[in-house]
Amino acid sequence: MKIAQVAPLYESVPPRLYGGTERIISYLADGLVALGHDVTLFASGDSTTRARLVASRDCALRLDPDPPVSAIAAHLTQLHEVRNRAAEFDVIHFHLSHFLHFPFFEQMAGKTVTTPHGRLDYRDLPGAYKRWPGFPLISISDRQRFPLADANWLATIQHGLPPRRPGSERWTGQGGYLVFLGRLSRDKRPDRAIRIALGSRYRLKIAAKIGDDDRAYFHDRIEPLIDGVNVEFIGEVGDAEKDELLGNAAALLFPIDWPEPFGLVVIEAMALGTPVVAWNNGAMNEIIDEGVTGAVVDTVEAAISAVHQVVGLDRDRIRAVFDRRFSAERMVRQYADAYAQLLHGHGG
Amino acid sequence: MKIAQVAPLYESVPPRLYGGTERIISYLADGLVALGHDVTLFASGDSTTRARLVASRDCALRLDPDPPVSAIAAHLTQLHEVRNRAAEFDVIHFHLSHFLHFPFFEQMAGKTVTTPHGRLDYRDLPGAYKRWPGFPLISISDRQRFPLADANWLATIQHGLPPRRPGSERWTGQGGYLVFLGRLSRDKRPDRAIRIALGSRYRLKIAAKIGDDDRAYFHDRIEPLIDGVNVEFIGEVGDAEKDELLGNAAALLFPIDWPEPFGLVVIEAMALGTPVVAWNNGAMNEIIDEGVTGAVVDTVEAAISAVHQVVGLDRDRIRAVFDRRFSAERMVRQYADAYAQLLHGHGG
Repeated sequence: MKIAQVAPLYESVPPRLYGGTERIISYLADGLVALGHDVTLFASGDSTTRARLVASRDCALRLDPDPPVSAIAAHLTQLHEVRNRAAEFDVIHFHLSHFLHFPFFEQMAGKTVTTPHGRLDYRDLPGAYKRWPGFPLISISDRQRFPLADANWLATIQHGLPPRRPGSERWTGQGGYLVFLGRLSRDKRPDRAIRIALGSRYRLKIAAKIGDDDRAYFHDRIEPLIDGVNVEFIGEVGDAEKDELLGNAAALLFPIDWPEPFGLVVIEAMALGTPVVAWNNGAMNEIIDEGVTGAVVDTVEAAISAVHQVVGLDRDRIRAVFDRRFSAERMVRQYADAYAQLLHGHGG
Repeated sequence: MKIAQVAPLYESVPPRLYGGTERIISYLADGLVALGHDVTLFASGDSTTRARLVASRDCALRLDPDPPVSAIAAHLTQLHEVRNRAAEFDVIHFHLSHFLHFPFFEQMAGKTVTTPHGRLDYRDLPGAYKRWPGFPLISISDRQRFPLADANWLATIQHGLPPRRPGSERWTGQGGYLVFLGRLSRDKRPDRAIRIALGSRYRLKIAAKIGDDDRAYFHDRIEPLIDGVNVEFIGEVGDAEKDELLGNAAALLFPIDWPEPFGLVVIEAMALGTPVVAWNNGAMNEIIDEGVTGAVVDTVEAAISAVHQVVGLDRDRIRAVFDRRFSAERMVRQYADAYAQLLHGHGG
């Protein structure tokens, strides 16, 4: 098949550091090439891919050395180019949020498919979707669909990751600490992670990006709780460090306060055999096998007792569940099937 | 003429508090109605206007009691509605930033006109404009055009304000303080305002909104300089308070570090007879008559000496310059002329 992948321009594909959407697009584009498809990736020019790269912008918006940048104008330019070349493709797969591409492709919605990578509970999304009904969508969890239950959902395709990096089997949770990993925003509840760690008498390592929006929250609410001994702040980490940090952890804490549609770090932990204690929110109970790969809880007290349980789980079995459920190969195959379904007319 | 005004949905028209764009749209829509035109205003449902209001959203995005909201989805819905009804209008006037409406109206660019209310030096704008060349634009200052010098510029129309509110003539700068008014962002350089005030031995009152993006900057850099005596922080002020604050000030400081395309507060000060000391940036030398309504400077030292000069300027003469150059009536007439020019085929 001739497939276009249209990535957001905020980060490169794959991203330098944090950026779940762009990592998934990278695995998908490369995986489709490996299956023999003809893949064109519309992404920022600092991307690296096995697909044919079409860059409408030289570098990712977030890393642009010459601000100010306009995300809207950048994506309008990109979408104009995709539309100009639409006839070259059998399927055009959008990974943009918030339907910015709909007005461009309303004459050919049936050959497009869109994976929204974020939450969908924005007040404005159902009204906008109704203006362009029929655009085929793919969810990354069943829970993600709720706010747009009546949309034209083709499939749910959970994210997947490549096989574990060689050497990562040597991390066996021997660090004896808990870990919090992700953006340091209010919604991710690092404060809860700290309470759980203190309550369960484990050390906590916080490895997180502090976005511009999160700086005041971090300063006011989290920084005072960091003592460098029981609660340690590491900052943003690269892939190799992340493997060691996650693989050495007794458990990952994921005490989110928002309807997280997937939670990539949860399966990253599983890939390394590390169990997860997560809040009962978003897709968590679709991803975590209770008592096998972790626990899903509703209170700090339950989380504290869950920590003591999950540290005893069989880490080889957690890895085996990851291999079975969350491989990139499985994800790529499912997307290829969805494209075939579209081509045979089940999309529009 | 049958005229559509399309306002951004971030604030109501007029805005509750801060929001220059929405204030200008309000004066323009009401002024066009007063001239006998048939005006439809596309804006949030909490707007108040003499025009026919079409609300694609019940309330402004920034005041929505039920977040999260999606600005992109909200504006896509609005633009879809405007396009559905495009045949009803002779002219459609967009006040959106960043060209989001271009893909919707590419078949009828010649009956649209766009006033970009913000800076245009975003790296992505020229590339995007090239994808939709010919869309007629109106600048709010000549300086604003620089980054898009080759675009289809119809006119420059400087902002205007309604006549001074009754009673505002009683403020005659007798407060003996300097004032800084606007957003408290790094680009507006409140730190410079503080240095100028301390150097010129005037008290400084800072009346400003602290946006989410500005909180960390305020906390780290400005708050430590506020002593409540020589430097006082008042927060965001409403219209009546603003008149008193500005009208009682010896001078307004506007020491901006960015290419401000207009600077509404500068003409608000003039309306009350208050002189302005502004940085030589953006449109400042188009708006300020040097030695008549204020001074344009390049350094803190020059600003300090300018303060001592401008406090002696004739405040009645400043008001007279405002009346002549910056009335809403003049602005409305110029826009009506531009629409007529479009209708007679000089736009596309």
